[in-house]
Amino acid sequence: MKFARLGAPGSEIPVLVDGDRHFDLRSVTSDVDGDFLAGDFRERVDAARAAGELPELEGAADLRIGAPIARPSAVICIGMNYAAHAAESGSEPPKIPIIFLKTPNTVVGPNDDVTIPRGSEKTDWEVELGIVIGARAAYLDSPDEADAHIAGYVVANDVSERAFQIEVSGGQWSKGKIAPGFNPTGPWLVTPDEVDVDDLNLKSFVNGEPRQDSNTSDMIFDVRTIVHHLSQYVTLEPGDLILTGTPQGVALSGKYPYLKPGDVVEISIDGLGHQRQNFVAWEATR
Amino acid sequence: MKFARLGAPGSEIPVLVDGDRHFDLRSVTSDVDGDFLAGDFRERVDAARAAGELPELEGAADLRIGAPIARPSAVICIGMNYAAHAAESGSEPPKIPIIFLKTPNTVVGPNDDVTIPRGSEKTDWEVELGIVIGARAAYLDSPDEADAHIAGYVVANDVSERAFQIEVSGGQWSKGKIAPGFNPTGPWLVTPDEVDVDDLNLKSFVNGEPRQDSNTSDMIFDVRTIVHHLSQYVTLEPGDLILTGTPQGVALSGKYPYLKPGDVVEISIDGLGHQRQNFVAWEATR
Repeated sequence: MKFARLGAPGSEIPVLVDGDRHFDLRSVTSDVDGDFLAGDFRERVDAARAAGELPELEGAADLRIGAPIARPSAVICIGMNYAAHAAESGSEPPKIPIIFLKTPNTVVGPNDDVTIPRGSEKTDWEVELGIVIGARAAYLDSPDEADAHIAGYVVANDVSERAFQIEVSGGQWSKGKIAPGFNPTGPWLVTPDEVDVDDLNLKSFVNGEPRQDSNTSDMIFDVRTIVHHLSQYVTLEPGDLILTGTPQGVALSGKYPYLKPGDVVEISIDGLGHQRQNFVAWEATR
Repeated sequence: MKFARLGAPGSEIPVLVDGDRHFDLRSVTSDVDGDFLAGDFRERVDAARAAGELPELEGAADLRIGAPIARPSAVICIGMNYAAHAAESGSEPPKIPIIFLKTPNTVVGPNDDVTIPRGSEKTDWEVELGIVIGARAAYLDSPDEADAHIAGYVVANDVSERAFQIEVSGGQWSKGKIAPGFNPTGPWLVTPDEVDVDDLNLKSFVNGEPRQDSNTSDMIFDVRTIVHHLSQYVTLEPGDLILTGTPQGVALSGKYPYLKPGDVVEISIDGLGHQRQNFVAWEATR
């Protein structure tokens, strides 16, 4: 089952996506948010569709695609979760998950323009598998309990400004992770039954040239280990977004130039969809 | 002007505090949240009170005190902002503000019990001046512009678990900053006209014994510098909470024991009020 949110920022319409068809979910929920995802949302949507209560949304193909989830209460990120990316960043692979946070207002649509921040010379891309929390999770007793707390998965671009993150940060990464629009998310929220989350190719391209090309099977800490581990340190709320780390092939490696105005970034994950962002100068947005 | 939120968690009533009197604000706003604080809230409250539209809330003294602001979209923290605290933590004073984040679900009432996390042996206190954002702030051109974006100030306890923060974190502090209830806030949101924010004593006590005793004049980066600086990296939303760093005198220094079940922490800042938390064992909350 795939969900999306279509329309202008702040007034997105929740829809069920089935191939090229988009079914309006507003008779079931006002949004794809924590309240919706914490419950038996799949059963409710199935029942509504079977009862003929979900009209097709006309003109869906012409609408902007928003993030597939409403603004979360928290965006929690796992750092250095692919060994080859840790190496290109000059780090050892971690022995325990590293956590940092993005502000929830970074979350935008998958194809929205991304503004290169004022003064930035080191804006970088990061394709990542995102986990969306369903039921609240605190102090899980084992990774086996994680699945019951996962509503689905998304594509995310953990856009990063490396000078802000590393050079003027005192070593705390968040400063380079929280610029406006630095978290394109979607196009879809895909329920776990539709993908094998431990075996998904994830890729990125800049101006059509390949950059990252890896598989979630290369993650040091897998999805269930991450959710279990996080739940020891924080209460994961319904609708929260967890970014699971990025593989090798980013500009920080020194192999590729950082992003400049006019560049186009595309990222994709098997079964979870494709994003395409134009990167624009800060001055152009004033 | 002082605001508070009184009542059970999740159903707090917004009030104007005037000495011992509490005036029910529900005819003016449903909550002390970003929508309220982004506008001319002081004028609206003044007008409503002058018009006799704010009834006194009966039984206010018997109600739980909640955090004085609704759950923010972000809690942004400044690290190592007092030179003597940087020294006791084994660090040099920073030359540029260091940013880390807490999850918004850490924000609780000033006198709520705080649970020592499962497995914690190094739970610590941190009295901090908190800034609450009024109007949205992005790319301010100078610190002089900050005042127009500040709704008021609060007392905050940036409760921290030092093993989680430092020993099992890969150096990213958030892991030790985001346990449930790790951000007692309040009792009041105090508007800027009521305090000289650059000259406020801030203190903490454990079981009645003094720990921290400093003044906001000792901050390396002052309030306006912080808001200006942050706005270069993140869009500050109405209702967001910024913690401005803690002075020396925490357990991390090695001078004092970490917190154990049964300990009582009290913290206070001139003009902004007093907090008192019982620290309780995780096992006792199951």
